[in-house]
Amino acid sequence: MQRFTDPAALQAWAQAVRARGETIGFVPTMGYLHDGHISLMHIARPQCDHLVVSIFVNPLQFGPDEDLDRYPRDESGDQARCVDAGVDVLFFPTPPTMYPDGFQTRVKAGPLASPLCGASRQGHFDGVVTVVLKLFNLVQPHVAVFGAKDYQQFQVIDAMVRDLNLPVVIQAGPIVREPDGLAMSSRNAHLTDDQRQQALCLSQGLNRCEALVADGEFDVARILAAARAFVSQQPLADIDYIELLDAEHLTPIDWLQRPAVLAFAVRFGATRLIDNRILSP
Amino acid sequence: MQRFTDPAALQAWAQAVRARGETIGFVPTMGYLHDGHISLMHIARPQCDHLVVSIFVNPLQFGPDEDLDRYPRDESGDQARCVDAGVDVLFFPTPPTMYPDGFQTRVKAGPLASPLCGASRQGHFDGVVTVVLKLFNLVQPHVAVFGAKDYQQFQVIDAMVRDLNLPVVIQAGPIVREPDGLAMSSRNAHLTDDQRQQALCLSQGLNRCEALVADGEFDVARILAAARAFVSQQPLADIDYIELLDAEHLTPIDWLQRPAVLAFAVRFGATRLIDNRILSP
Repeated sequence: MQRFTDPAALQAWAQAVRARGETIGFVPTMGYLHDGHISLMHIARPQCDHLVVSIFVNPLQFGPDEDLDRYPRDESGDQARCVDAGVDVLFFPTPPTMYPDGFQTRVKAGPLASPLCGASRQGHFDGVVTVVLKLFNLVQPHVAVFGAKDYQQFQVIDAMVRDLNLPVVIQAGPIVREPDGLAMSSRNAHLTDDQRQQALCLSQGLNRCEALVADGEFDVARILAAARAFVSQQPLADIDYIELLDAEHLTPIDWLQRPAVLAFAVRFGATRLIDNRILSP
Repeated sequence: MQRFTDPAALQAWAQAVRARGETIGFVPTMGYLHDGHISLMHIARPQCDHLVVSIFVNPLQFGPDEDLDRYPRDESGDQARCVDAGVDVLFFPTPPTMYPDGFQTRVKAGPLASPLCGASRQGHFDGVVTVVLKLFNLVQPHVAVFGAKDYQQFQVIDAMVRDLNLPVVIQAGPIVREPDGLAMSSRNAHLTDDQRQQALCLSQGLNRCEALVADGEFDVARILAAARAFVSQQPLADIDYIELLDAEHLTPIDWLQRPAVLAFAVRFGATRLIDNRILSP
């Protein structure tokens, strides 16, 4: 496995690969890799000649009061996991090389970035699309794979790819869960035992709502009331949002008529977890 | 010469060229081609295997009160000039294919876009960098050439290329002038005979200030006063701005100590002309 820290060197490598007519697959991450990340590598691996993984905790997508400084890191563990997953190139840039003095041009996401995490985290998605565009330009992937746990992130990136005519195919890998149902996340490492136990209210709340819909409940207000009541039973759970939006446009709906995304963001102490499920009538 | 209107078809062509290891040169224009544009094609031609010219009057970079509807057009004349200049591919997209329903992701330029034309034309440079990024992603050029008449535009695009890690070399072609000194511009076609005569105050005003500096005048306030007095002698000239800024950062200066750009924007009726000169102590 090759390892690059210099963006220009990585880009030169990618240009040479492209000029030979070979293909590049890409999984961008913030590191502290878990089985969710590895599953994305397994999706990309058979689709490309060269598999690139980036590890970059992107300061631009964290607000001033967010957890940039305490975001978990494990460089050597990540490196070993990438070798095991058949990664060819690990890209490990630093903030000063990604955002040198004078950096000033950003990508601005549109209305898809307004609800859910975009409402809770001002400027978050502008930071996401800016770094993803930079990484795409450096890595020059033919295909890039993102996790479905960040549902809104995928929709916002999908819009960017379409709107800016990026020559890349993006794919979403299914949410990977712990045996008891908790969606895998690097941030799970911060949970205390009690928080970890109560955090099951996310996946179980989604299950509960899915069962309601299977039983014929299509009234969005009632589905949301059930979800909020279920999560609120856990004393350590602090709901950031629980919403059910049109799955394509992320706009409010009153009644489940076509696919919708049920999205949860719940805080446990300083740790904010998200999860989601697509519900169809 | 091949001609594309469909962005996807043009991009597929570019991908195939890139995968063969061949190079692409690019001159983006808004059409109504004059010798200034042609000079850019001559700069790009020997540097690439395939020369692409785009013609697209980009609605995103025009304000609601600006001259989008009256911007001059000459599709068949442009096509003939491109053939003569050795262009391989003419890309002629339409607004609905560049900005389909649901388009929402934009590029936002930084502080370099604030003064000069950025102050007079709110949102103009965001529209410019958005369309240039889209065109770069479609055409996938190795080298792209822009006219130096739009000095600030070049600086803003140069920052975007650097900030977003675009794999393209950009170059500025020198301003091309009519025999009497007027900088070539598609908008010159709108000038009445009287306006056309008085429009010489731009290039002559720049000449006058350059001579002042050659004579040892480095006081910015005095250089600007001379420029404004000179242009104001023409009764049809309505000054939008006359400024002398640091050439690299486009920030105000009091004294000419390093290269600076003397930039003019002057209206003649509804027609707004720009010109500039780099002044060095």
